[in-house]
Amino acid sequence: MKKLINGVDDIVSEALRGMAVAHPDLVEIHLSPDYVVRRGAPFDGKVALVSGGGSGHEPMHGGFVGLGMLDGACPGAVFTSPTPDQIYECTTRVSGGAGVVHIVKNYTGDVLNFEMAAELAQGDGIEVHSVVINDDVAVQDSLYTAGRRGVGTTVLAEKIAGARAEEGATLTEVADVVRKVNGNGRSMGMALTSCTVPAAGKPTFELAEDEMEIGIGIHGEPGRERVKLEPADRIVDRLLGPVLADLPFRSGDRVLTLVNGMGGTPLLELYVAMRRVAEALGEYGCRLERTLVGSYITSLEMAGLSITLLRLDDELIRLWDAPVHAPGLRWGV
Amino acid sequence: MKKLINGVDDIVSEALRGMAVAHPDLVEIHLSPDYVVRRGAPFDGKVALVSGGGSGHEPMHGGFVGLGMLDGACPGAVFTSPTPDQIYECTTRVSGGAGVVHIVKNYTGDVLNFEMAAELAQGDGIEVHSVVINDDVAVQDSLYTAGRRGVGTTVLAEKIAGARAEEGATLTEVADVVRKVNGNGRSMGMALTSCTVPAAGKPTFELAEDEMEIGIGIHGEPGRERVKLEPADRIVDRLLGPVLADLPFRSGDRVLTLVNGMGGTPLLELYVAMRRVAEALGEYGCRLERTLVGSYITSLEMAGLSITLLRLDDELIRLWDAPVHAPGLRWGV
Repeated sequence: MKKLINGVDDIVSEALRGMAVAHPDLVEIHLSPDYVVRRGAPFDGKVALVSGGGSGHEPMHGGFVGLGMLDGACPGAVFTSPTPDQIYECTTRVSGGAGVVHIVKNYTGDVLNFEMAAELAQGDGIEVHSVVINDDVAVQDSLYTAGRRGVGTTVLAEKIAGARAEEGATLTEVADVVRKVNGNGRSMGMALTSCTVPAAGKPTFELAEDEMEIGIGIHGEPGRERVKLEPADRIVDRLLGPVLADLPFRSGDRVLTLVNGMGGTPLLELYVAMRRVAEALGEYGCRLERTLVGSYITSLEMAGLSITLLRLDDELIRLWDAPVHAPGLRWGV
Repeated sequence: MKKLINGVDDIVSEALRGMAVAHPDLVEIHLSPDYVVRRGAPFDGKVALVSGGGSGHEPMHGGFVGLGMLDGACPGAVFTSPTPDQIYECTTRVSGGAGVVHIVKNYTGDVLNFEMAAELAQGDGIEVHSVVINDDVAVQDSLYTAGRRGVGTTVLAEKIAGARAEEGATLTEVADVVRKVNGNGRSMGMALTSCTVPAAGKPTFELAEDEMEIGIGIHGEPGRERVKLEPADRIVDRLLGPVLADLPFRSGDRVLTLVNGMGGTPLLELYVAMRRVAEALGEYGCRLERTLVGSYITSLEMAGLSITLLRLDDELIRLWDAPVHAPGLRWGV
């Protein structure tokens, strides 16, 4: 296993300490339990947004803490849910009196632990609304999921809901816009290579030199099928087809596209894929209104990509275009 | 070779077309010859900045075209210098009458081709000042270089000189600040794995499962030594030592640190390294004033990192903090 790490058990806490020294103007780090909060939080009268999940998907979620996005993020161990007390403590820490929205990716552990944390916070008089993101069209149930997995739409929901909270919206309004993004966002991913979870020390799965996995999960869990390697355009079409058909997106729809790298895929290749996405959307009749290209929800060093489409309306465009200042989001937004 | 590409010869032009559809508000793409220019260029009376080099190092340089950074970028084929006519055409395209600064990484082909392009542009009455970046302390000469290679300091020079040009500085003043950044910046990198140049179809070099290359070049060219894998902290110290000793940085110096991923290294690991960089700088007596953590000057999917230190003064801090809006730079700056 070739990784730039010290002890396997210290990765998350050491990375958080790295974030603390790198972005003291943007975030504050708490260790044991681990969480990232926006500098200056809590913000009086503002609805607070908290997300979290296993580490290994950086910059999600800690990199999305900042102005116009999350108030707090709870990183678990690599590919492991954060604990209820961790989420509870982060929730109380960022609560500004107007309620807290939990944005939860649909993995069984995450859902359970966020539920318990919400109950604890509500016991303290903090109102919490939770929204589960389940946008991955690849498989119905999976290794770690009842129902669909939550993937790329999470990034978009955190950006858009963050902007809504910044506008002074109420708890219900912010939770509603998360639900709206989840309702209008669909994703699917694929992998060229596996990743290696540090504590396991060996690749999560094996793929032959001429094979790829279509519909992969962000923890390397199985997708729809394992097929022979193909040109990038054909791969994009394999992902876009089910994504477009699922919502379904319709001719004339305005869409935002996230072309997301899994961690080990060069930006050069993501732009090659972006080109075909735009072309295919044009053929389908959708209008490409906004894009995000880069590695935003990753699986350690896995090579591969995922494509997320979000159907836009004027409100979502306004919120997408609102200012954001977080360690992990590019200026291009 | 597992890559998300179509034809090997189409990668750069297809990626550029992907950039064009992803960032129409920020950049404009010209194909054959290939270059990226800032939307709205030329800007009358503003000194224009042009850089370029082989592709495969994304987001550098095309991702740095935008407000407060480059006016134009010329991508060659993967790891291959752009041609003189390509650079010449881009230079004339962005020239706003106040002169053009060429920022050139010190590789023999780049230096020669930028020189020829500058002569051609000067024949048209465009004043061009060229500054060569040669900040890599790892080796004195190398496979593609007379003298030191140009690496991470290039990113910082492009950001800082872009801000200086935006302020309305003269051609000489903008070129001077590039020289100042180069004079005060030093870098060194390492690799855990090789990358595969698409046209070659096989890894550039072989590294055993327990080995790493210290002082690696951004094209996978040999560094100082090949040694056994070590913990991240020890690797950081191996890079920081020669970087600090070379300038030399002194106790009390204010510094900016770029912890740069080579392409295949997860952000999680870069933050682990960032933590040790900050600690080591503290022990050395330097003041960590600014940071940039992420994959900004890459070598395709190579796993590894480089560390760049820049000695700051009030001018450089002011310029670093100035607004920038380019597809490849994170908001965290």
